[in-house]
Amino acid sequence: MENNGNTAILKIHCPDQSGIVARVTDFINLHHGNIISVDQHVDHEENLFSMRVSWDLSEFDLKREEIAPMFEKFLGEPYQMKWTLNFTDEVPRMAIFVSKASHCLYDLLARYQGGEFRVEVPVIIGNHTTLEPVAKQFGIDFVHIPITAESKAEQEKKELEILKKYKIDFVVLARYMQVVSQNFINHYPERIINIHHSFLPAFAGAKPYHAAHKRGVKIIGATSHYVTSDLDAGPIIEQDINRISHHDSIKTLIQKGKDIEKIVLARAVKAHIERKTLVYKNRTIIFN
Amino acid sequence: MENNGNTAILKIHCPDQSGIVARVTDFINLHHGNIISVDQHVDHEENLFSMRVSWDLSEFDLKREEIAPMFEKFLGEPYQMKWTLNFTDEVPRMAIFVSKASHCLYDLLARYQGGEFRVEVPVIIGNHTTLEPVAKQFGIDFVHIPITAESKAEQEKKELEILKKYKIDFVVLARYMQVVSQNFINHYPERIINIHHSFLPAFAGAKPYHAAHKRGVKIIGATSHYVTSDLDAGPIIEQDINRISHHDSIKTLIQKGKDIEKIVLARAVKAHIERKTLVYKNRTIIFN
Amino acid sequence: MENNGNTAILKIHCPDQSGIVARVTDFINLHHGNIISVDQHVDHEENLFSMRVSWDLSEFDLKREEIAPMFEKFLGEPYQMKWTLNFTDEVPRMAIFVSKASHCLYDLLARYQGGEFRVEVPVIIGNHTTLEPVAKQFGIDFVHIPITAESKAEQEKKELEILKKYKIDFVVLARYMQVVSQNFINHYPERIINIHHSFLPAFAGAKPYHAAHKRGVKIIGATSHYVTSDLDAGPIIEQDINRISHHDSIKTLIQKGKDIEKIVLARAVKAHIERKTLVYKNRTIIFN
Amino acid sequence: MENNGNTAILKIHCPDQSGIVARVTDFINLHHGNIISVDQHVDHEENLFSMRVSWDLSEFDLKREEIAPMFEKFLGEPYQMKWTLNFTDEVPRMAIFVSKASHCLYDLLARYQGGEFRVEVPVIIGNHTTLEPVAKQFGIDFVHIPITAESKAEQEKKELEILKKYKIDFVVLARYMQVVSQNFINHYPERIINIHHSFLPAFAGAKPYHAAHKRGVKIIGATSHYVTSDLDAGPIIEQDINRISHHDSIKTLIQKGKDIEKIVLARAVKAHIERKTLVYKNRTIIFN
Repeated sequence: MENNGNTAILKIHCPDQSGIVARVTDFINLHHGNIISVDQHVDHEENLFSMRVSWDLSEFDLKREEIAPMFEKFLGEPYQMKWTLNFTDEVPRMAIFVSKASHCLYDLLARYQGGEFRVEVPVIIGNHTTLEPVAKQFGIDFVHIPITAESKAEQEKKELEILKKYKIDFVVLARYMQVVSQNFINHYPERIINIHHSFLPAFAGAKPYHAAHKRGVKIIGATSHYVTSDLDAGPIIEQDINRISHHDSIKTLIQKGKDIEKIVLARAVKAHIERKTLVYKNRTIIFN
Repeated sequence: MENNGNTAILKIHCPDQSGIVARVTDFINLHHGNIISVDQHVDHEENLFSMRVSWDLSEFDLKREEIAPMFEKFLGEPYQMKWTLNFTDEVPRMAIFVSKASHCLYDLLARYQGGEFRVEVPVIIGNHTTLEPVAKQFGIDFVHIPITAESKAEQEKKELEILKKYKIDFVVLARYMQVVSQNFINHYPERIINIHHSFLPAFAGAKPYHAAHKRGVKIIGATSHYVTSDLDAGPIIEQDINRISHHDSIKTLIQKGKDIEKIVLARAVKAHIERKTLVYKNRTIIFN
Repeated sequence: MENNGNTAILKIHCPDQSGIVARVTDFINLHHGNIISVDQHVDHEENLFSMRVSWDLSEFDLKREEIAPMFEKFLGEPYQMKWTLNFTDEVPRMAIFVSKASHCLYDLLARYQGGEFRVEVPVIIGNHTTLEPVAKQFGIDFVHIPITAESKAEQEKKELEILKKYKIDFVVLARYMQVVSQNFINHYPERIINIHHSFLPAFAGAKPYHAAHKRGVKIIGATSHYVTSDLDAGPIIEQDINRISHHDSIKTLIQKGKDIEKIVLARAVKAHIERKTLVYKNRTIIFN
Repeated sequence: MENNGNTAILKIHCPDQSGIVARVTDFINLHHGNIISVDQHVDHEENLFSMRVSWDLSEFDLKREEIAPMFEKFLGEPYQMKWTLNFTDEVPRMAIFVSKASHCLYDLLARYQGGEFRVEVPVIIGNHTTLEPVAKQFGIDFVHIPITAESKAEQEKKELEILKKYKIDFVVLARYMQVVSQNFINHYPERIINIHHSFLPAFAGAKPYHAAHKRGVKIIGATSHYVTSDLDAGPIIEQDINRISHHDSIKTLIQKGKDIEKIVLARAVKAHIERKTLVYKNRTIIFN
């Protein structure tokens, strides 16, 4: 629906006031934009309004560069909005960080190559070389940047240079298994997506399947979230679970978990690519 | 949110045109209605627009009786809308039809008595007397109307009289196990909710658990739908499933199925009570 | 299958050794017991063997009182087994502890009265009188035992007396909202079943839905477990979840959570009644 | 657990009689086999016994070639068993049939290459060349065999020759979109695994997502089954579902469905590879 290259996507976040939906849709209609989708949410506890609206630009009578200033003047400023405007023909560029586990990487690349994700993936960064052949298989550049506690600051600089060089818009940690620094996060706020192999906030930190097995849970999960400086505590984008039983060993938990990790990460990445996520108060809104 | 008794709920259905959301929310804002929730859907294939909006009436400057004519004049008629207007202090009256199985009845009554449903349940009709004690337990009138193939037309007349006497708005068939006639349905179009004990359209008709067992499915389900003249083919309101295995006999399927039936029916009834359902083209929209 | 009143259920737990299944089933076959079900589990990490076997006693050539000593002599003692033997015509007696929330109580009683649970429920104990009418509705004795921090030790004594008087085998805390003391637990080890309204170990303690809302999870859960002295840390019997979204307020979380709590508690209680649970290392095995 | 190359897997199916589990485990113990797993099922309605047992061969005192005749003599024949014996170092050889859709193929190959499947995949057969590059990516032979209604018989002969040449043990139809003939099936009875993109028996045949959308279901599913001569009616190995809503178009149904298809097919293939499936009466037992 929104894939024909001339669609605008506007995300809005502001204090709730009467009439915002009407004003925004009026603005679009007035300029002959054909609205494709509208989704809005009011958080009555926080008195906050959020909205995502997309419209067809084919008969829109504003030039692209005119939209933002005019919207800011007539709506953004008066309503104290934080807003972003994107166009679907601006394809975001995604880097994937990996370590040794291949399942999430394969899944992301298969979706990328199969046309599920409207994204470019120009580079994969690994702290091991294990997955270099997978990158090669899919014809994607692979950069090996080993990391130790001592070399971290320095190596993250290199990573940031590579991300800059490849004009990366957002980063996916596909079971990267490294904590990224505050400095690194500052370069990609709300643009680093991690997959944690547990149902957060249960079993944050290392070895969640071991912890889940020890605790004797009957369900395991995975959580995809934006990375913040608090480990495994960033805004959750997506979660899912799988039922297990006493028959499961740590080994089978890890195996079954892979399937949830893959799908949860893929859904989160897709929502991000399609500009359907909005973060506030360390939570997310996932628009339709 | 909508339970304080002075909330209006408007449901709209019409050909899709530019600007409808804006016009409707303008109408409400103009008269100082404080919008509580908006949910809308556009079916691009059918070019149909649907919307549910609710607003607080405490500062609304139209009298109740003025809303409908004014809305029809300025919006309903020009936009060829089918629309309904309800107020949350008008509590709908629900009749429950039962046969011998108690699980759905108990579940509905427990929710009713526990305050989950904003509804009145003045009467239960049974084609057997098995569940009369349950009605008594909850202090609700029970009417026994046995039905045979021969007596059906006549007995349905009695049922309709009872529904009229108790001023019933909608009917829930809580494992009633009887096919209701077209004539009966005509009195309550889109207002008779059934629970079928399978994942429709699989296993329509009698003995779905037997059929599921024979087919060797790995998942069973339940479906709640509005009753139409086509058996088990009405618009689906809600479905859910439960995983089973080769260990399950027909007996345990029936047992496990009860839990899905209860919850699926309860969700459907709740959506109906809260005016969150909209039927078109034999499908439903379930608003937020 | 096991409901005809003359079925024996044997649960076994011991160090894993070669041939146990064969020895146990031989013992039963030798005495003309017709095996109805066998389920076994080996924990290879802990080298522990567990088994549940049930058999029809109609042609069994040992008298009931002979089974235990003979089994202990020939199998229990040699294999260092911990084992329990029950007969399905010995119907366990269950007490329900409640506070103010009705949903779990209604669900348990509806199942009890509808014949889903092979159990007796002679008494309900409440620290408030709120649910006394529900007990009355179902014709079950209700005892009001208010509890404060100061009166706890004393009041728990009263509770234990009541449990003794009613010959209670196990206790279900149906949203009881009180921490029970170590002394109380000692009287019913692995025989007090609690429902916690979160996906443990996430959100242990008070107000889990508030915590879940704050954390911005996309899924909520409920956990039924045996009560131990560590709050919300006992062996988990059953868990389940429900998907939520940013549209959910704390209020709707609580509402949606009720449905999971009910079903998770009911499954746990059913497993316990049917002697399908086995606890070790603070985890459970749930037999088929 | 069973991956160390010297494990035997025995699957048994026979009329239920007292003592079979004991006899079989005795046989293994007697010859110093260390049992790794036992799972059994009795279908009381059909009076049929089924069992899967695996054991470590490292201290087993029968030679491989001695096991089968001895087992048949002492157990198979007397108990009228149908049984199969496999060894985990005999890695089965799997062919994948594809058409144009890539998602299932990628998923299977990623699991294969990632070590999740103990299988060899020497060849992929496609009726289109669309996925030849994917085969190449993973270094697997690709054979293009176009099929029309007229050429079917002839082309299936070619396929069978290729399967023979590559010594294929079983075939996976990964969204192959062609009905295979009875003759073809006869060469691989209970060894052709299909994925159907609906929750069977709902929406058998062509375009199930279109049918699901038209019917207005609230849940979509996928079904993996062994292929028989009745279209989409073979024994079901695995099913799973995904919740949808009125917001979903046919396009998004197809997209969401892919994720279920992938996982359901992968689980079915894994169960087959690990010799955990047993077919009878057009149903399956899936052992632990």
